[in-house]
Parts: sequence; structure tokens; C-alpha cells
Amino acid sequence: MKRVTQLGPGRPRLEPRRRAGQTPRAEILDAAAELFTGNGYGSTSTRAIADAVGIRQASLYHHFASKDDILDALLGETITAPLKLAERLAESDAPAAVRLYALARFDVSQLCAARWNLGALYLLPELRGERFAAFRARRDDLRRHYEILAAAVISEAGNPTVPGADLLPFRLVESVINIRSDEGAPPRYADQLIPDAMLRLLGYQEDLARTRAAALKLG
Amino acid sequence: MKRVTQLGPGRPRLEPRRRAGQTPRAEILDAAAELFTGNGYGSTSTRAIADAVGIRQASLYHHFASKDDILDALLGETITAPLKLAERLAESDAPAAVRLYALARFDVSQLCAARWNLGALYLLPELRGERFAAFRARRDDLRRHYEILAAAVISEAGNPTVPGADLLPFRLVESVINIRSDEGAPPRYADQLIPDAMLRLLGYQEDLARTRAAALKLG
Repeated sequence: MKRVTQLGPGRPRLEPRRRAGQTPRAEILDAAAELFTGNGYGSTSTRAIADAVGIRQASLYHHFASKDDILDALLGETITAPLKLAERLAESDAPAAVRLYALARFDVSQLCAARWNLGALYLLPELRGERFAAFRARRDDLRRHYEILAAAVISEAGNPTVPGADLLPFRLVESVINIRSDEGAPPRYADQLIPDAMLRLLGYQEDLARTRAAALKLG
Repeated sequence: MKRVTQLGPGRPRLEPRRRAGQTPRAEILDAAAELFTGNGYGSTSTRAIADAVGIRQASLYHHFASKDDILDALLGETITAPLKLAERLAESDAPAAVRLYALARFDVSQLCAARWNLGALYLLPELRGERFAAFRARRDDLRRHYEILAAAVISEAGNPTVPGADLLPFRLVESVINIRSDEGAPPRYADQLIPDAMLRLLGYQEDLARTRAAALKLG
């Protein structure tokens, strides 16, 4: 039998805490993120998550009613901050190129800085169900922010560009997830490469170093 | 008990064939692709695949020793033709832009035409194991072909571009997988948008309609 350590009020734990996170909830999310991205979502049980945290399965259910709820919380975390920034930038009167740069740079940095490559879960078939409709709607919102900013950059730059190019900045940001997966480490160069590349693709021909500096003040 | 229909020599079938594919092997692959992309890889058993085809599990094992073998065969199919084209294009003396256009257009068309969005499986953690080392090596080969062609386009175009832009054509092609997943249907516009966009990103300023026409002759 495993030794039970009493650490919190009324929450028996099988082992001392050894997870990233200040709270049991954060520890559960960290363990789940590691297992979902490392072993696969379908192959991970709530039991395995509880074991990885060192708590009983019943304690896990005190925080999350289901594995889907854990996934929803994790995916929500990847969207919340960039969506908030996008909403703030939509109110700004800075040039569209500076605003798009600020959003993309922040989003790429966050995808790189996260402890686990959670974006790799965006393509899970499970996300197409009703349970994740709210997450999908928020992600669609973020995508629309990119598309609106990109269209504004094209219009402000006034140079010929490829029809439909406004769809691609969001996709270039997402590509960081694939690069991180292939390289086995977050691509440190991406928070400059990706925003630089998207502006050039949109026909923007101003000096990128100055745009970047302006974006850093804004973001 | 299900009724057993005898259709092939020594291979009892629970139901008549109702799958895409001319052979039992092709039917198994089609059913597995639907289940892997629709329900998730970890959540799909070989039993479920056999049931979907209407054959016994033992018959499935006659064709594939394991679920991983089925996944490997499916993923291999997504790489074989573009890799073959890339190898042929490497020998061609056409301009790099025309060759890159031909490769990207073909690859995007194939990702769109496939019955199931198999590229969504590229980020599965299962692929990081030794079992899929050969697949990963072939996919790395394909990526290198894109990077070499992209560097040649930058060099031939001779225009200033973003450092590292040669990494992005491969990623733009992959983004078709994400667009297809989000839109719920293959993006018919992508086989022009993606190659056009990558050439512009690499500083290529020639007429894209002519480049496309030349690429169609080559591919």
C-alpha cells in the first residue's frame, strides 16, 4: 500500500507534491498537459493523471468533473491571453502592421514559453464535439482578429499581394506548434521570424526593426 | 450472432464490403483513417477497425501486425508521392521557383484530395517513438527538399527577404491540414494561395500565373 501524506485540509495525498503549480488544480493541469502531449489524449485516463500528481482519483474529480473538462481548461489557457490582447489592440489607433506584429509576437512567444506544446491538441477529433463549442468559438474569434488586422495591413501597405493572404498570418503563428514538435524544442527564433514573415507576405515594405520596436511598446 | 458471408478465399467476413478500397488491405486502411481522424488514435482499437470493415480481428492481423503498423502505412501514403516528386524535381534544371511551385501545388492538392485529413495525425505523440523513426526520416527528407528549393528561390530572386524564410514554405503547406480541420472541408483555393504566398514570401516578384503554368507542365 502507498503511504498517504496529509498535506491539505481533508485532501489525502499519496505522495508529496512534485509538480509545477502552486495549487492542486494547477498540478492536475500540469500533469494532464504532460500526459496528453506525451502519451496522447485518448490513451490518458483520469486515473493516470491523479497518479502522476500523487492524489486520489476522487480528489481529482473534486476539481474537474471529467477528462474533457481538464482538456477544455488547458486549451482555454492557450487562447485567453492572446484573445485579450487582440481585443485591446482592436481599440488601439496604432498602425495595423504594428498591432498585428504585437499580437503575433505575443502569441508565438506564449506558444514557445508554455511548458508543454498544448497547441498539438488543437487537431484532436474530440474538439469537434459540442463539449468544446465554446472553446472553438473563442479560437474562431482570435482567428478573426488576425484576419481583420491582416486585411488592414494589406490595405494600409497598398502594395499588390496574393488574394487570400489575410488568412495566412494566423496559420503562420500556428506553425510554431509544428516546428516545436519537429525540433523537439521551442523555436527561439520564431517570435521574430513569424511576425516579420507575415508582414512581408501582406505587402508591408517598411523597416521591420522599427515596426518591431513599436510593437514591443504596444504589447 | 452476426451472419458470416464468405467472400474471399479462406477469409470469412461478417458483412459484405462497404468500404472505399479494392482490397481488404485498402478497406482496413480506409476504416482506420476514418476512425483515427474521427475518434482519435488512442481511442481506436484494432477490434473497432475490424468491425468497421466487417471482418474478424484475426483477419485484420493477417494484413497488419498492430495498430501502429496501420498508422505507419497511412502516414507513409501521405509522404510517398510528394517525396518522389521532390526527388524528380531535384534533378530538373527548371528555375527553383517553378520547381517549388510544382511541389507545393502537388502536395497541397494531395492533402486536400485525400478522403481523410490524415495530416492531423502528424502531431500524435505516438510518432515520436522508435517505431516511426523511418517515417520521421522520410518526412524530414521532404522538409529538406522544401528548404533547399526555398533557399534557391531566395538566391535566384535576389531580393531582400526575412532571414529564415526558407523554413516557412513547408509550414505553409502543412497549414492546409489545420485549415481543413477548422473549415470542416478541404480548402479548394489552397493549391493556388499557398504556392503563390510562399513565392512572394521568398522575395519572388515574377508573374505568378506564368510560374504556375510552367509548374503545371513540370508536375
